[in-house]
Amino acid sequence: MTSKIWGGRFSAGPSSVMEEINVSIAFDQRLAKQDVRGSRAHCAMLVAQGIISKDDGEAIQGGLTRIEKDIAGGTMHFRRALEDVHMNIESRLSDLIGLPAGRLHTARSRNDQVATDFRMWVRAAIDTLDEELEKLQSVLMDKAESEAATIMPGFTHLQAAQPVTFGHHLMAYVEMFGRDRSRFKDARARLNECPLGAGAIAGTSFPIDRHLTAEKLDFDRPMANSMDAVSDRDFAIDFLAAAAVLATHMSRLAEEMVLWASAQFGFIAFTDAFSTGSSMMPQKRNPDAAELVRGKAGRVFGALTTLLTVMKGLPLTYSKDMQEDKEAVFGAFDTLELCLAATTGMIVDMKPRRDRMKASASAGFTTATDLADWVTRVLGVPFRESHHITGRIVALAEQKGCGLAQLPLADMQSVEPRITQDVFNVLTVEASAASRTSFGGTAPANVIAAVASGRERFLKKGRKS
Amino acid sequence: MTSKIWGGRFSAGPSSVMEEINVSIAFDQRLAKQDVRGSRAHCAMLVAQGIISKDDGEAIQGGLTRIEKDIAGGTMHFRRALEDVHMNIESRLSDLIGLPAGRLHTARSRNDQVATDFRMWVRAAIDTLDEELEKLQSVLMDKAESEAATIMPGFTHLQAAQPVTFGHHLMAYVEMFGRDRSRFKDARARLNECPLGAGAIAGTSFPIDRHLTAEKLDFDRPMANSMDAVSDRDFAIDFLAAAAVLATHMSRLAEEMVLWASAQFGFIAFTDAFSTGSSMMPQKRNPDAAELVRGKAGRVFGALTTLLTVMKGLPLTYSKDMQEDKEAVFGAFDTLELCLAATTGMIVDMKPRRDRMKASASAGFTTATDLADWVTRVLGVPFRESHHITGRIVALAEQKGCGLAQLPLADMQSVEPRITQDVFNVLTVEASAASRTSFGGTAPANVIAAVASGRERFLKKGRKS
Amino acid sequence: MTSKIWGGRFSAGPSSVMEEINVSIAFDQRLAKQDVRGSRAHCAMLVAQGIISKDDGEAIQGGLTRIEKDIAGGTMHFRRALEDVHMNIESRLSDLIGLPAGRLHTARSRNDQVATDFRMWVRAAIDTLDEELEKLQSVLMDKAESEAATIMPGFTHLQAAQPVTFGHHLMAYVEMFGRDRSRFKDARARLNECPLGAGAIAGTSFPIDRHLTAEKLDFDRPMANSMDAVSDRDFAIDFLAAAAVLATHMSRLAEEMVLWASAQFGFIAFTDAFSTGSSMMPQKRNPDAAELVRGKAGRVFGALTTLLTVMKGLPLTYSKDMQEDKEAVFGAFDTLELCLAATTGMIVDMKPRRDRMKASASAGFTTATDLADWVTRVLGVPFRESHHITGRIVALAEQKGCGLAQLPLADMQSVEPRITQDVFNVLTVEASAASRTSFGGTAPANVIAAVASGRERFLKKGRKS
Amino acid sequence: MTSKIWGGRFSAGPSSVMEEINVSIAFDQRLAKQDVRGSRAHCAMLVAQGIISKDDGEAIQGGLTRIEKDIAGGTMHFRRALEDVHMNIESRLSDLIGLPAGRLHTARSRNDQVATDFRMWVRAAIDTLDEELEKLQSVLMDKAESEAATIMPGFTHLQAAQPVTFGHHLMAYVEMFGRDRSRFKDARARLNECPLGAGAIAGTSFPIDRHLTAEKLDFDRPMANSMDAVSDRDFAIDFLAAAAVLATHMSRLAEEMVLWASAQFGFIAFTDAFSTGSSMMPQKRNPDAAELVRGKAGRVFGALTTLLTVMKGLPLTYSKDMQEDKEAVFGAFDTLELCLAATTGMIVDMKPRRDRMKASASAGFTTATDLADWVTRVLGVPFRESHHITGRIVALAEQKGCGLAQLPLADMQSVEPRITQDVFNVLTVEASAASRTSFGGTAPANVIAAVASGRERFLKKGRKS
Repeated sequence: MTSKIWGGRFSAGPSSVMEEINVSIAFDQRLAKQDVRGSRAHCAMLVAQGIISKDDGEAIQGGLTRIEKDIAGGTMHFRRALEDVHMNIESRLSDLIGLPAGRLHTARSRNDQVATDFRMWVRAAIDTLDEELEKLQSVLMDKAESEAATIMPGFTHLQAAQPVTFGHHLMAYVEMFGRDRSRFKDARARLNECPLGAGAIAGTSFPIDRHLTAEKLDFDRPMANSMDAVSDRDFAIDFLAAAAVLATHMSRLAEEMVLWASAQFGFIAFTDAFSTGSSMMPQKRNPDAAELVRGKAGRVFGALTTLLTVMKGLPLTYSKDMQEDKEAVFGAFDTLELCLAATTGMIVDMKPRRDRMKASASAGFTTATDLADWVTRVLGVPFRESHHITGRIVALAEQKGCGLAQLPLADMQSVEPRITQDVFNVLTVEASAASRTSFGGTAPANVIAAVASGRERFLKKGRKS
Repeated sequence: MTSKIWGGRFSAGPSSVMEEINVSIAFDQRLAKQDVRGSRAHCAMLVAQGIISKDDGEAIQGGLTRIEKDIAGGTMHFRRALEDVHMNIESRLSDLIGLPAGRLHTARSRNDQVATDFRMWVRAAIDTLDEELEKLQSVLMDKAESEAATIMPGFTHLQAAQPVTFGHHLMAYVEMFGRDRSRFKDARARLNECPLGAGAIAGTSFPIDRHLTAEKLDFDRPMANSMDAVSDRDFAIDFLAAAAVLATHMSRLAEEMVLWASAQFGFIAFTDAFSTGSSMMPQKRNPDAAELVRGKAGRVFGALTTLLTVMKGLPLTYSKDMQEDKEAVFGAFDTLELCLAATTGMIVDMKPRRDRMKASASAGFTTATDLADWVTRVLGVPFRESHHITGRIVALAEQKGCGLAQLPLADMQSVEPRITQDVFNVLTVEASAASRTSFGGTAPANVIAAVASGRERFLKKGRKS
Repeated sequence: MTSKIWGGRFSAGPSSVMEEINVSIAFDQRLAKQDVRGSRAHCAMLVAQGIISKDDGEAIQGGLTRIEKDIAGGTMHFRRALEDVHMNIESRLSDLIGLPAGRLHTARSRNDQVATDFRMWVRAAIDTLDEELEKLQSVLMDKAESEAATIMPGFTHLQAAQPVTFGHHLMAYVEMFGRDRSRFKDARARLNECPLGAGAIAGTSFPIDRHLTAEKLDFDRPMANSMDAVSDRDFAIDFLAAAAVLATHMSRLAEEMVLWASAQFGFIAFTDAFSTGSSMMPQKRNPDAAELVRGKAGRVFGALTTLLTVMKGLPLTYSKDMQEDKEAVFGAFDTLELCLAATTGMIVDMKPRRDRMKASASAGFTTATDLADWVTRVLGVPFRESHHITGRIVALAEQKGCGLAQLPLADMQSVEPRITQDVFNVLTVEASAASRTSFGGTAPANVIAAVASGRERFLKKGRKS
Repeated sequence: MTSKIWGGRFSAGPSSVMEEINVSIAFDQRLAKQDVRGSRAHCAMLVAQGIISKDDGEAIQGGLTRIEKDIAGGTMHFRRALEDVHMNIESRLSDLIGLPAGRLHTARSRNDQVATDFRMWVRAAIDTLDEELEKLQSVLMDKAESEAATIMPGFTHLQAAQPVTFGHHLMAYVEMFGRDRSRFKDARARLNECPLGAGAIAGTSFPIDRHLTAEKLDFDRPMANSMDAVSDRDFAIDFLAAAAVLATHMSRLAEEMVLWASAQFGFIAFTDAFSTGSSMMPQKRNPDAAELVRGKAGRVFGALTTLLTVMKGLPLTYSKDMQEDKEAVFGAFDTLELCLAATTGMIVDMKPRRDRMKASASAGFTTATDLADWVTRVLGVPFRESHHITGRIVALAEQKGCGLAQLPLADMQSVEPRITQDVFNVLTVEASAASRTSFGGTAPANVIAAVASGRERFLKKGRKS
C-alpha cells in the first residue's frame, strides 16, 4: 500500500485533493431523476408567474425531456469536472438549448434545489420499502396460516416457558414490520414539505409561487422558513432511525433463524437457496443469509451514528458537512432492500420441522402455568397460592422423571386433594396452546383470526385476494 | 481504588454479585405510580369479568389507594431484597390486605406488567416534553417578534451570504422544535397500545377483557400479539430517536449561542444568570449553559446507541437484557428536560446587540444576489449572466474598497450600461431583507406573519392570548 | 409527570436551571482522593521551588492530611453550592488553615487540575480492571485445565464443524482478555503524562518544576504542550474504546452461556447462584446474569458514542462540554466491574455436562475433515480432491444413517479403493481432537500446555502457584 | 424508484438474492496482494515440512508469480461467480498450473486465510497512515516555527482567556497526532500475530510449522489459540477506534479553521486551492475542505459503531456476520487518507493574518492573569487574594474604557498601593506570552524548542534535515 497522497492520486497538488474531497457526482447522480423533475416544476412555475417567458419555458422543458430520456436510458454522461448532479444537468441543458437554460436558475439556488431533490428521493425510497415490507408481511402471514397449529416452545431467557404456536410466533413479526411501515409513513408525512423557493437562505424577491411548485412535486405544502428549509436534515435522520429499528427487527428474526437451523434446535431447515453447504459435511447448512442480515444491522446503526454526528452542533444554515448525508442514506437503503429480499426469501424457503418443535415444547413442564391457572380457576385458589401448589406437583413429576401429563392423579392429590381428572385436559401442549384464546393469545384459532385481520390491516386489496 | 469485587462489595460470594447485577429497584421505582395504576385497571377488569369477586376487588383497590398515597407522599419504602418495583408493591399490598392480594396476579405476569408500566411512563414523558417544547417555541416566537426587523448576516459555511432578520433565524428553530413535537406525537400514537393481558408470553385461558383494561389505561387498543407485546421495545427506541433529533437541534442552537457570544461575533450577551464570569476578566462571560446543552447531545446519542445495541439480534420473547431499556430512557429524558429548561432560559436571557449584527451583515457584499436579481428582473438578463455581471461589479467595488451601495452608478454602468439609479433601492441590507417576501422568506413582514401563524399552529389557546 | 421545570425544581428562576446543569459535585466527588494527592504534589513543588514558603507548605499539607482522612472516612461534606470537588476541597482547606490555603492555587488553574485528577482516576481504574481481568483469566484457565479433554462440537455459523475440546474453547477467551489487558496497558502508558502546570491554557511565568510534580504523581513525564494538556480527552476515549472491546468479549461469552444453558444445547448448568428459577418450572434456570452481561455491552458502547460525540468538532482549548467526560467513564467502569465479577462468578459456577457436549460433537460427520486429511496425508491425494472423495463417503454414510466411524470399510473403498482400516483411527471425535496438535490446535495436550504457558504469560507470580 | 426486488435484480429467484447478499469480491479484492503473499508463505512452509513436494511447491510459486503480476498490472479478472478473492485466486492458479494447485489448500482453511490476509492489509494501512501523519506533523511544525511569535488569543469556552502564540496552538495538534500514531502503533503491535495454521477452527493434524509462516509474513508470532484466531476481529476494532480519535482531532482542527476563516474571526485566509468562491461575493471563501473534514468524522464514528454492533454477542467461532468487517475498515481508511491529505494541504495553504490575531488577543483584559501573577510573585500576596485585587483593577479599566496596559499606575495603586511601574512589563500581550516559559508553556522560545524536540521525537532522519 504505497501512499496515494504524496505519490499518485494527489500528485497534481492541492487542487486534486480538494477535488477529490469535494466532488459528489459519484454518488449524487442517484438524484438525477429527481433533479430533472424539480427543474420541470420550477420552470413551469416561473412561466405561470410571468418570471420567464413561455418560449423560454418550452425550450427548457424540451431540453429536460431529452435529459430525462438519457438518464432513463443510462446514456447521460456525468462529468466529474462538473462536481455534482445539478451542475451536470444544468450544463447539459445549456449545451442542448443555449441561452434559455440560464433562466432556469432564476429564484433558485443549489441549496434549496438539493434539499428538494433529496427529499423526493427519500420519499420514493420509503414508498419502495413500504412495498417490500408489505410483501414480507404477506409471506409471513401465509406461513403463519399454514403453521397456525404447529406447537413449539415459547421462550423467555431462551428457556422454554409455555407452548406457543409457530404461526403465532411469526405473527409477532408481522406486528413489528407493521410498526416499521407506520414509522416510515410518519417520516414520509413529516418530510413532505417543499424547500424549493427558499433560495440560498433568505427566500427571494421574485414573485414566485411556492405552493404551486410544492403541489407539482406532490408535496403537501412549502416549508415555512427558508433558513430551516436549507439547513434541515431531519428527514434523513428520521429515515435512518426508522431504518435502524427495521434492521433491529430483521436481526432478531435472523438470530432466531440461526438458532432454529442449528442441529441443537433443529426447528427449521433451509434449502440450498438460502444456505451454503459443504461437500464434506452434507448436514452442514450454514445459514449465511440469516447471519448477514443479522450483521448488516451494524451497518444501518453506523449510518444513523454518522448523520447524527454530522449534524450535531452545526450552525445554520448550509454547511458543506451536510453533503455527508447522502451516502449514509443510500447505503442504509441498499442494505435494507437486500436484507428485506433475503428475509422474505428465507421465510418462503424455510421448512419447519414440526416434530422437533413439538418435542421441544413438551419437555420441561411448559404447561405448569396451565396447571396453576386450572387450580385458580376451578378451585378458586388465589393465584399466588396456586403457583406454590404447582411448584410442589412439578417437583413430584421431576422426581418421578415424567411430564405433568403423565403424573398419576393420586400424586397430584397428595399435594392438593381437590384436583380432579379434569385437570388432564389442560396439561398437554396442544390443550395449553388451544386454551390461550384471550385477545392476542397463541391459540390456533386466534392465529387464523390474526392472519385474517392482518391481511385486512396490512395488505392492499389486490394482494389480499 | 481497591477492587470492590474481591474485597468489599462482593465479599459475600457469588450471590451478592448476582443481586448487584440483577436488582432494578434503584431505578425502576420511577414506575411506581404507573404500576399501581395498571394494577387498578387489571383488578377492575378481573371483577367485571367475574374472575375475582367484588369483595376481593374492593380490598385490592383499597390497598392500592393506600400505596398510591405512600408513593405520592414519598413514604413508600422500597426494599432491595424485593428486586423490582412490581414485587415491592405486590409485597406491600399483601402486608396491607392479606390473601386477596394473591388474586391480583391472576391472568397477569411480570412481563406484560412491566411493558405496560413502562409504556405509560414513556407516554407521560412525551406529554411533559411536549409542554416544555411548546414553552420553548413560545419564547422563541416572542423573541422573534421583537427582533423581526433586526438585520444580521445569514451564513452558509459560516460565511455571510445574505442579510437576514434575527427573528427569521429564530423562527427556523420554531420549525425544528415543531417537528420534534410531531415526532414525539407519532411515537406516542404508535406506543399507545396496551400489552396487559399478554401474560408471560402466550396470552391466558382466563376470560379476560383486554379492551377494557386498555381503555381504562387510556390506551387506544390492546396489542395484537402477545409475544410481540412482551418483547417489543420499539416504543423506547422511538422515544430515544426523537430525543436524539431534539438534542441535535438544541446543540445547533447552542453552538450558535457560543459563537454569537464570542467577542469576535459579539451578536448577543448573556447575563450572569446564564454565563459564568471571572472576577479577573469581567468581559469574559463563559456561555457554560450553552456549552453543556451542546455537549449533552452526546449523552442522548449514547442512550440511543445503548438500546439499539441491546435489542439487536435478541431472540423472542423477553430476555433479561431488556432491563437495560429503562436507565437509557430515564437518562435521556432527564437530560432533555434540563437542556430544554436551559435553552428556554437562555432565549429569554440573551440580549441581541443589534448594532454588531447589522454591521456584520453590511460587510462583504451580502447584497450581491440582490443586484443580480435586479439585473435579471429589470433588464431581463438570464440569471446565469446576471451572476457574471454582478461578479464584475463586485470586483470593482472591492478594488475601490467600498460596499455595493457606495459604488458610483457610473462604475456599475461601465459593466452593464442599462443599470439605473433604481438599483440602489435593493443594495442596502434593510432593503435586501425587506424584499425577500416570498413565502417563508426573511422579510420583517414575513416574520411577523410567521409568528402569528406559528402561535396558531403550535400554541394551546391559553398560551396564545 | 408534572413538569419539573416551570413547577418545582426550577421554580426559583433561571439561576436554578443554570445551577442544575452546571454543578458537577454529584459525580466528580469520585475524584476527591486524586484531587488531594495532586494538591499535595503541587504544594511540595511550590515549596521546593521557593514559590511559597516552607511554613505555608506545611500548613497546607497538614490541612490536606485532615481532608484526606475525612474523605477516606466518608465524613467529608460536599456542598452543592461549591459546584465541584476542587472548590469543595479548596474551601474546606481554607476553613481549616486560613490564609495559606490561598497560596496553593499559585501557578495552577482548575483546567490543569481537573485534567490531572481525572487522569489519575482513569489510571487507577485501569489498574483495578487489570486485576479483575487477571482473576477472570485465572478461573478460565483453571476450568480449561479440568476440561482439557472434554469433547464438544466446535461451531462455525452455529453449525458443528469439527470436534474441539471445551478447555481449548475457554482458552480462546483467555487470549481475548489478554488482549484487553494489553489494550488497557497501552492506554495507561499513553495517558501517563502530567498536565499539571499547564495553567488555564498557556503555562505560567512562575518558575515551577513540572518534572517534579509529574514524578511525585507517578507520571512518566509532563505533557509537552499546555494547550493540549487542558483540551485533551483522548485518555478517556482510549479507556472507553478498550472498555467497548472488553464488553464485546464478555457479551460473546455471555451469549454462549445463554446458548449452552438452553435445554436444546444443554452443555452447561448454572446453580441458583447465577440463575433465577421458577417455583413452577423447576427446570427453568434463567441465565439472568449472562443476559445482563450481554446487554450491558450496549451501555459501554453508548458511553463511547457519548464522548466521541462530545469531543467531535470542539475548538481548543477547554470547553464546558468536556465536563460530560466523567459520567461516561464512571458509568463504563462500574459496568465493567460488575460484568467482570459476574462473568468470573459464572465461570466458576457453571457445570459442564460432558455427555451432552460429546453427543453433540459426534453428530453430523464432524470428523469429515479428518477423513479428508487422512486421504491427503496417507494416499498423497491433493487436498481439493480428498475433499471430493470425503464428500462422497459422507453421502454414503448419510444414506445408511450411520456415522463415519460406523461405516464399513468396504463402503469407503467403493469410493476410494486405497483406503485401509487405519483410517478408523482418525474418525472418532476423541481421535480427531487429539490429532490437532499443531501450535494453537485443540488437542488436550495442547490445552494443558496452553494453560501452563498462559499462567506464565498472564498471572502474577503469587497467583500462579 | 421501482422495486429492484420483485422486478429486476432479484428476478431470477431466491438464488440471486442469496448471491447478492453473499458475494464479497466487489470489496475483498483489495486483499488480493495479501492473499497471494499468504499463499506463498504457506506453500513454502508445506515444502519445508515435507507436506508437499518441492516440484509441486515450485509449480505453485510459479503460478502465484504470474497472478501477482496480473494483480499489480490490474489485469487480474475477478469473477463474481467465484464469490471472494480467495476462490478467485485459487481458481486462477488451478487454470494456470492444474493439479498441484489442489495441494496448496492442505492444512489451511478459508477461515484462517481471510484472517491472515486482512491482518496484513490493516497492518499496511497503519503503515501508510503513519507516513501521512508524520507528513502532517512535519508541515504543522514548519508552520509553528514560522508563527512561533505570532500572538493570538487563547480561548476557553470560545472566550479569549490569555494571549498565546499561534505556533504553540499548532503544536498542540502535533501532540495529538503524535498520540494518534502511538495508538496505531499499539494496534499494529497487538495485531501482529499470525492466524495462519488455525485451520477452519481446530488446528490441523498435518505437521505444519506455524512459526515459519508467521516469520515469512513478518508477524511476530503465531496466534496462540486456533479458535480465537478465526473469530477475533479485535484488530479491526482497534484500527477503527484509533481512526475515530484521529478523525476527532482532525474535526477539531477543521472546526477551528472554519471559525478562523470566518469574517468575524478573520485569523486566516485560504487560497482558492482550499476554498470555493462565489463570482458574486468575492470575499466569500467557503472553507469546504475543512467542513468536509469535520463532517467526515461522522463516517468514521459510524464505521466503529458498525463493527462493534456486528461483533457484540456473536458466539464462537466464525460467523458470516464477520464479513461486514471489511467495508467498515476500508471506508474508514479511505476517509482518513483523504482527510489527512486535505488537512495537510490546508495547513500549508492557510495564510495567518497576524494583525487580526494580535488585535483580537489584545481585547478583553487577556493579561489579567499576568497582573495577578505579578501581585503574587512580587508582593507575596496569596494567589486567591491577588485574584480579587486584579478583579478590582480590571473593573476600573473597564469603567475607563481602556486596556490594562493603558490604565494609569495611580488607578492601580488605588486598589493596591504597593504596585509599581514594573507591572507594566507584564501587561502587554507580547510580554504575557513571552513570560510563559514553564515547560510546555506558550512563550515563543518554548515553541522553537518544542519544534526542535518534536522533529526529534516524530520525524524520520531523512525528513528532519
